[in-house]
Amino acid sequence: MKETSFAIEFQPFGIRLICTEATTVLDAARQAGIPMVNVCGGKGTCGKCIIQILEGEASPLTHNEQVFHKGNLLAQNERLACETILTADAKILIPQKSLQTTQILQTESATQKEQVDALIHNVNIQLQKPSLESPISDLENVLSSYPNLQFESDSRLLDIFKLTPTWMRETDWQINAICENDLILGITKEPPERLLGLAVDIGSTKIALYLLDLENGDVVAVKGIPNPQIGYGEDIMARLGFAMQDNNNENKLHTVTIDAIHQAVQEICENTTIDPNQIVNQCYVGNTAMHHIFLGVPSRHLASSPFTPVLTKALNIPVEKLGLQGMPGSRVYIPGPIAGFVGSDHLAFLLSAGFAESDQVLLGIDIGTNTEIALQKGEHIVSCSTASGPAFEGAHIRFGMRAAPGAIEHAHIDRNGLMHCDVIGEGEAVGICGSGILDIISELKNAGILNYRGRLDIDHPLVQVGEDKVRSYTILSAADGQREISLSQKDIDQILLAKGAIRSGIAILMDYLAVSPDEIDEIIIAGAFGSFLNPYHAIQIGMLPEVDLSRIKAVGNAAGAGARMMLLSKEKRQKAEGLAKRIEHLELNTYPDFELFFANGIRFTPD
Amino acid sequence: MKETSFAIEFQPFGIRLICTEATTVLDAARQAGIPMVNVCGGKGTCGKCIIQILEGEASPLTHNEQVFHKGNLLAQNERLACETILTADAKILIPQKSLQTTQILQTESATQKEQVDALIHNVNIQLQKPSLESPISDLENVLSSYPNLQFESDSRLLDIFKLTPTWMRETDWQINAICENDLILGITKEPPERLLGLAVDIGSTKIALYLLDLENGDVVAVKGIPNPQIGYGEDIMARLGFAMQDNNNENKLHTVTIDAIHQAVQEICENTTIDPNQIVNQCYVGNTAMHHIFLGVPSRHLASSPFTPVLTKALNIPVEKLGLQGMPGSRVYIPGPIAGFVGSDHLAFLLSAGFAESDQVLLGIDIGTNTEIALQKGEHIVSCSTASGPAFEGAHIRFGMRAAPGAIEHAHIDRNGLMHCDVIGEGEAVGICGSGILDIISELKNAGILNYRGRLDIDHPLVQVGEDKVRSYTILSAADGQREISLSQKDIDQILLAKGAIRSGIAILMDYLAVSPDEIDEIIIAGAFGSFLNPYHAIQIGMLPEVDLSRIKAVGNAAGAGARMMLLSKEKRQKAEGLAKRIEHLELNTYPDFELFFANGIRFTPD
Repeated sequence: MKETSFAIEFQPFGIRLICTEATTVLDAARQAGIPMVNVCGGKGTCGKCIIQILEGEASPLTHNEQVFHKGNLLAQNERLACETILTADAKILIPQKSLQTTQILQTESATQKEQVDALIHNVNIQLQKPSLESPISDLENVLSSYPNLQFESDSRLLDIFKLTPTWMRETDWQINAICENDLILGITKEPPERLLGLAVDIGSTKIALYLLDLENGDVVAVKGIPNPQIGYGEDIMARLGFAMQDNNNENKLHTVTIDAIHQAVQEICENTTIDPNQIVNQCYVGNTAMHHIFLGVPSRHLASSPFTPVLTKALNIPVEKLGLQGMPGSRVYIPGPIAGFVGSDHLAFLLSAGFAESDQVLLGIDIGTNTEIALQKGEHIVSCSTASGPAFEGAHIRFGMRAAPGAIEHAHIDRNGLMHCDVIGEGEAVGICGSGILDIISELKNAGILNYRGRLDIDHPLVQVGEDKVRSYTILSAADGQREISLSQKDIDQILLAKGAIRSGIAILMDYLAVSPDEIDEIIIAGAFGSFLNPYHAIQIGMLPEVDLSRIKAVGNAAGAGARMMLLSKEKRQKAEGLAKRIEHLELNTYPDFELFFANGIRFTPD
Repeated sequence: MKETSFAIEFQPFGIRLICTEATTVLDAARQAGIPMVNVCGGKGTCGKCIIQILEGEASPLTHNEQVFHKGNLLAQNERLACETILTADAKILIPQKSLQTTQILQTESATQKEQVDALIHNVNIQLQKPSLESPISDLENVLSSYPNLQFESDSRLLDIFKLTPTWMRETDWQINAICENDLILGITKEPPERLLGLAVDIGSTKIALYLLDLENGDVVAVKGIPNPQIGYGEDIMARLGFAMQDNNNENKLHTVTIDAIHQAVQEICENTTIDPNQIVNQCYVGNTAMHHIFLGVPSRHLASSPFTPVLTKALNIPVEKLGLQGMPGSRVYIPGPIAGFVGSDHLAFLLSAGFAESDQVLLGIDIGTNTEIALQKGEHIVSCSTASGPAFEGAHIRFGMRAAPGAIEHAHIDRNGLMHCDVIGEGEAVGICGSGILDIISELKNAGILNYRGRLDIDHPLVQVGEDKVRSYTILSAADGQREISLSQKDIDQILLAKGAIRSGIAILMDYLAVSPDEIDEIIIAGAFGSFLNPYHAIQIGMLPEVDLSRIKAVGNAAGAGARMMLLSKEKRQKAEGLAKRIEHLELNTYPDFELFFANGIRFTPD
């Protein structure tokens, strides 16, 4: 049974997204990495997520939209992204006013065109017509006009010269070489219609694929798929545990990953009627475990001390070798990880965030189950990894959940002491996601309901003590006819541990390079959680050092952006490899007074 | 159904031959390339092919052998190689006295040990034990003690690091690398028992395989198999014609060749209980068509003017790529051909014959359907190919046949005008092979039965005129109660055309480099026919220039010898590649006055 799918094209970005089920324009824009304004949480009440439908059919006007039209708050050709549902091909215009212009920018996501240089290019080769006097071999004939051109290996040469000799004679001695720098990847009779490339960020939960035009950097299609390894373990440590159980398990993880990517590329190509052979270059980033699993080298040694990676070198591997789609003989560029728990996604993030490009003091943070942190000062770039755990993703929190419909994503306490919640989607709240928990804890602290040691005030009317003697704060009450949602002392402790892990990592790097908070020119936060995070609250609870809010920037899927940069530009690859060499990895557990840094980090206001 | 097979080991050479059917020791020695004395043609009457059976059972003493024993011409532990039949494993001693010491030497065959240098070698790698303070990656760990070591490609590195990380930990941080120069081909926990190599000469009719010990150059086993391409055409032009008929035909030729070699190696390994993974290097030579078919690149363009080869570069291809047996990741070295009709077998011949090693004037001739000729003088080495046709292999000759049992291989006319014939094997004569025809023509000329223009004397009693008006000379008469065998004027014309093609090639090369016959220090003749050829008669009929007979040397399968040299020695490979660059290929058809050279060449005594 073939799934029906359709493509949504976003202008002025030229981004295409392939969908397999009905979606609101807002959700589709999010998936494509376009940072739309989203004040009411997609309830159709704020009227900010304005779009125009340039081509295609959409769901009829909703009541909310009719109200905005009547009030002239929406022009006749405008609709609200959160209210408009698409089920077929469409072209959507997102005006500038609908883009996030607050301090939380997601600019480095899919909206910026990357630098393009001629990494992959066609070379038209005019051949000699051989004669009895000059019976030049076919290989020498190809190389005679371009003596610098070469082949990656004799194997590749052999593959290419299975078909080329006949083509040379059929085209009247003129052929096209597809080259990566001076390397002949393949020979064709005619230059291909387009040279396409694929950049992929293999996240632990989601794999993001970007199909790009290598000649102008245009994004041709974007697709996100769940990481199929989830079937073998929710997080990386669980999957590495699975890998350690049986020698064949690593291979299972590798195979499901490759198969899922293969299938996703197949779907992208079918929906865009692109021949997979037009994909002539690829770049994959991910954390070290994803990197090892993708390559099919042992990942299980990453799980035990001293957490040594198998390899950290950037590799170029032919597509066939990895079982991926693409022009036979074309290569997959796989930047190397930095260390056992600092992957190539971190490298890609730092590349896209401009590390090693200026002499600014930069602090880069990619928050996840493992949080990678990097600090640049002068010639030094030092990075570390800290096990912040899955609390910010809602795990181990009673009412915790991922940032999905029904999640409280933001909250504040008004001057009357009432908690107001923004919920993702149109339904009622069913849980709290990371950014919501952060807001709530910060507001509870500001309101004095949490004391400086992070304990709930037992005397507050909304703080109850459960049967298990654990205090909890009621966020939404069943008395109001909805699901009761509360935050317990245990939940708060989890979050403080998580933020403590991050803050102690930051503090150790700052200590190592002797950086004070006021020296920091920019804090760059990557990852989905970083985009939802309210930086004011992050500082309030002591997760981030106290800097001016204008110096905090969220960059969304920065690893994907870095992968796209490395896909498109030889210079960026060289920069990334230089950056990788320059990054000094710091093992936190062996840093002097590590325990003191950690104890300090979990406090609301660390020293 | 599994064929039973057995192994014959020849001492003092250490050569092993795998046989699948009963064989005389003489035939087996011939197959193994050992030049035994063979005066009576294997009839058991000359008593020269003396051997000793060191181990194993053989057929009982024959009447001939009993006669020699009685006359004390054979010691009690001695037997005659031509009379002794083996059907099971045996070890045979061939004493020095039984080896050819006449001017026709086959020394360059399998009897000489080649130069061995450490092309393939084991490297013991002592690794660091990584720690949290120094969590070195597994790859860096391997390379840290030997920074010059590298991998052929990132693909190979990836393959090797699928198993190596676990081995590193299992062996307490010590592993073995199998290297080709500075290239890591593979990594093992322990050094393998032996490092073996395979040298293969892909002839148009026979494929010769030599399994060698790479550390000391010992020949471990020898096997000859028929070239399965014969099913698609008797000679190269017929096979190229087949290749041109359909695009898939080239692939058929390639596949049967690879399969046959695969199967032959399988059999060698089964019979010697050797693990094919111990084969860590291979070298293949052949004429240009065999080279192209073996590699699977188009061969059909070799059949039409200007006969350009696809490639002439020496290649190193991993075994898996070619579908051959051997250690995964180990490489097959394939020297490049010189031109469309001058293959890498010619290069191997010149290497083994010492071309480019001295400043002697050398003439090298490899006689076959195509005869390749090379002439060295000073800095110059020039080679050509000439279509001498299959007459010397008995084709297009009424009673012609290959050098097989029943063939007249030598003949002379005694002072009474009677023709005496030596027949291969024990039966009566059924035909004439190339060397026999050559002798007969030479003797007929010396006896005046052929005139200077090569016409049979119609007045001679043994010359008859057939119904087709064609004269023929009766060699063996039905009147003597045997098969009548004769040589017709047409047969003689064919032979004169063939020898004319060879002589005109020689003459053009000598003209080009201004060499006179007395300047030639050595004429080296390769190939099976060359070993049977009587050089006196070859000069008599004008096939070879008039030089002192002591300067003519036959070297047997010199291409196989060259392949073995290139298998064993890095220096020989470099020499071969230098030689290939130095060889100037001369296209005979475009040489000035080519027709005059040819017309002159077919005469009995060319100018």
